[in-house]
Amino acid sequence: MKINIERLMKNVNELSKIGKNANGGIDRSLSSEEDHQSREWIKAYWDKNLGKKVKTDAIANLWIHKEGREALSPIVFGSHNDSVPNGGAFDGALGVLAATEILETIEENGVMTRHPLAVVSFTGEEPNPYNISTLGSRVLSGRLTKEGLRKLYHKKDGSPLSDCISRLGGDIEKADEILIRENDAAAFIELHIEQGQRLEKMMQPSAAVSCITGIYRERITLQGEANHGGTTNMPDRNDALLAACELNLAFEKLVKKIGDPEVVGTIGQLEVWPNEVSIVPGTVILMLEIRTCKEEIKELIVRDLTVLAAEIESSRGVSILREVNLDQPAMPMDDTVLRAVKAGISIVSNRAAALREINPETDNKTKADNKTKADNKTKADNKTETDNMSEADSKVPVLVSMAGHDAANMQRVTKAGMIFVKSIAGMSHCPQELSLAEDIEMTVNAMLEAILILDQKLD
Amino acid sequence: MKINIERLMKNVNELSKIGKNANGGIDRSLSSEEDHQSREWIKAYWDKNLGKKVKTDAIANLWIHKEGREALSPIVFGSHNDSVPNGGAFDGALGVLAATEILETIEENGVMTRHPLAVVSFTGEEPNPYNISTLGSRVLSGRLTKEGLRKLYHKKDGSPLSDCISRLGGDIEKADEILIRENDAAAFIELHIEQGQRLEKMMQPSAAVSCITGIYRERITLQGEANHGGTTNMPDRNDALLAACELNLAFEKLVKKIGDPEVVGTIGQLEVWPNEVSIVPGTVILMLEIRTCKEEIKELIVRDLTVLAAEIESSRGVSILREVNLDQPAMPMDDTVLRAVKAGISIVSNRAAALREINPETDNKTKADNKTKADNKTKADNKTETDNMSEADSKVPVLVSMAGHDAANMQRVTKAGMIFVKSIAGMSHCPQELSLAEDIEMTVNAMLEAILILDQKLD
Repeated sequence: MKINIERLMKNVNELSKIGKNANGGIDRSLSSEEDHQSREWIKAYWDKNLGKKVKTDAIANLWIHKEGREALSPIVFGSHNDSVPNGGAFDGALGVLAATEILETIEENGVMTRHPLAVVSFTGEEPNPYNISTLGSRVLSGRLTKEGLRKLYHKKDGSPLSDCISRLGGDIEKADEILIRENDAAAFIELHIEQGQRLEKMMQPSAAVSCITGIYRERITLQGEANHGGTTNMPDRNDALLAACELNLAFEKLVKKIGDPEVVGTIGQLEVWPNEVSIVPGTVILMLEIRTCKEEIKELIVRDLTVLAAEIESSRGVSILREVNLDQPAMPMDDTVLRAVKAGISIVSNRAAALREINPETDNKTKADNKTKADNKTKADNKTETDNMSEADSKVPVLVSMAGHDAANMQRVTKAGMIFVKSIAGMSHCPQELSLAEDIEMTVNAMLEAILILDQKLD
Repeated sequence: MKINIERLMKNVNELSKIGKNANGGIDRSLSSEEDHQSREWIKAYWDKNLGKKVKTDAIANLWIHKEGREALSPIVFGSHNDSVPNGGAFDGALGVLAATEILETIEENGVMTRHPLAVVSFTGEEPNPYNISTLGSRVLSGRLTKEGLRKLYHKKDGSPLSDCISRLGGDIEKADEILIRENDAAAFIELHIEQGQRLEKMMQPSAAVSCITGIYRERITLQGEANHGGTTNMPDRNDALLAACELNLAFEKLVKKIGDPEVVGTIGQLEVWPNEVSIVPGTVILMLEIRTCKEEIKELIVRDLTVLAAEIESSRGVSILREVNLDQPAMPMDDTVLRAVKAGISIVSNRAAALREINPETDNKTKADNKTKADNKTKADNKTETDNMSEADSKVPVLVSMAGHDAANMQRVTKAGMIFVKSIAGMSHCPQELSLAEDIEMTVNAMLEAILILDQKLD
């Protein structure tokens, strides 16, 4: 059983027309007219091609369900339909359409799984005018209740979030009823673009995701002394911006020294007061962020930062006030789902290697490279899917997700996992965002295999 | 002949009540109600205590004139009455009131100078809502004509500058008529607070000013690549802010290496795009400023900056676009006025030393220190004032003004000079701005002597 890549790419192309701006970017923020239109497109597609009853839940997540052979909880898969301003055609949308394609493929093949299956398109995953990201999955996981929802307003026009959700067919007053409880979902899988360059560097189409990064943020205020930029001698200055520059460069050095591609640190936001051409900067406020799945590495960096800050305070005559603004722990993915995803990737990869092996046009080098893979494949074929899962090819890429995703919320209430598809040049949240059809095909097929494995494995 | 310091300090105190805010700072920007009130106070004081006809010129500079014995051009002295927002009580106001005190002292002593004398209070010296500083002297010097004045509007309410000047009693349509031509002024002297810490470090009350600093500014755009702060590996980043940090620290090092207290460099203004906590900074725009009287030092720093920028471009993968925004040359003060100011300071300093010498309460150390000065003084007293001027004590502090002043414009059209009075802790443009009565007394008396010397010397 294999997905129809032409149909999937056609759907990606169709959906990308909704909200496309003059730059070729996609504008489909929560509560925009384009968000609404894209939801209507998805519902109409499901209705027409899957013949399933579409459901809109209290927070306006969209769902379709397919029955299973047994009285089990559904296996859920999907992603989000919204985009950042001037975003790309793949972030979120590809995950929803890949899930749709998988369900359509299973239907077409007349396969009846043991578990019911459900596809979901989450509401408002990206940052939006209500200042709340991963909104749909946040409510499903109980991280946000109707009490919290009632307090959210549009930052520009001041309208309540409830109005927006009502327009989209939800009802925040019923939000607490959609909390996912035990037996509401057997598992959750999300397909997403990697948004980085790791798969490209590995020359691999897909990866299983082991963990969604922790995010730690400090708001740091450097207080020096604003003074006349002409009459204040260089040695008499307490320049808050120069102090911030030292901090930024030393912080970068600290993070780079760790030498782990899955540990990053960023000072992305910085403001200067009074920010006048002839005045020595008196105050700088900046936001510092560390992302890693390894709590001990975060703590190491934070400890080193403390030493650094004290040195800068003393050498520059500034005070440095650090406030922890966010300390969101890493979210490891469920081990069973992770192993199923790895197995799915392995199966598809071995199948591709075997196909290359029997292709007479394949050059010699490729033949040699694929020899081992084909051997593995033959071995794998002689085993059951469950065996595949426990002995998945150790060469399957396993990555940490360095961005947040709905899957992190879902992991709080069910067994969640993710599969990444290669991004070209790591471009993301921009019109240049791209994943290739050949990589998407491999990855969506791997996800289909993972779902079938979980269907066997889970009870 | 000596000035009345009690009366001067009382006037400083009285004028500082106009525009005093809750922080103890002074708000007296051009076109504010408080600017208007302070002008009314000055005019009323002149009218009452000097009995002179007050004149308001086309750009609303305030003037009083005293006749001289000979048919010569007037010696002009004064400063400005406006302040920066939340400024201090001394910047500008002290120069106007010191000039007023000198005229009052000369009047009281029944002295009739050879030259007519004129006191001026300039309009809008500080940055103001019309984005034009040293406004009054700029028009007098012909740097700004009625054509230019017609194009200036209030940056907030959009009203033309002409309305503001009309309210203050001027008329921009007549601005070209007040250009100072040959014979309109014999000389100009301005007393101002130093705004730095050099005199304090030298333990001196006064300095003659040899030159008003050149100001060179570049607008620098650093263009990297905005990218996801989670998914972009550290080595793959082109972080424009980190590049700007390196530039700022290297620029500071470059300027400090010169080791000249009269060469400063500042990056006071810096903005980051997109300035989001989780996005690697893509663009930084900053303003870089160099102040020095030495053109060759400015050029040296600019050349070194070019090398630096190329290194950063290559190591950080960013492009650096540099645009010269301002290249205002240094303005050396007139040599005759400079020597008169030095002589004035020398006379007052020697007089003070002689007084300390005959004071029985003076301790031994001070006595020893003053022995030489007193000897010099005795020698000096045996010479004419003109001799004094040419052999002024080589110990008289001579400073470069690191801030711009009306005197720089006046030097374009007459012989201009400045005298600085010590600032406490270099505080300026803030409520803490302070100069002590004892230092002010020495400095204003020195300025009086300088005016009397110029009156003898100039024809």
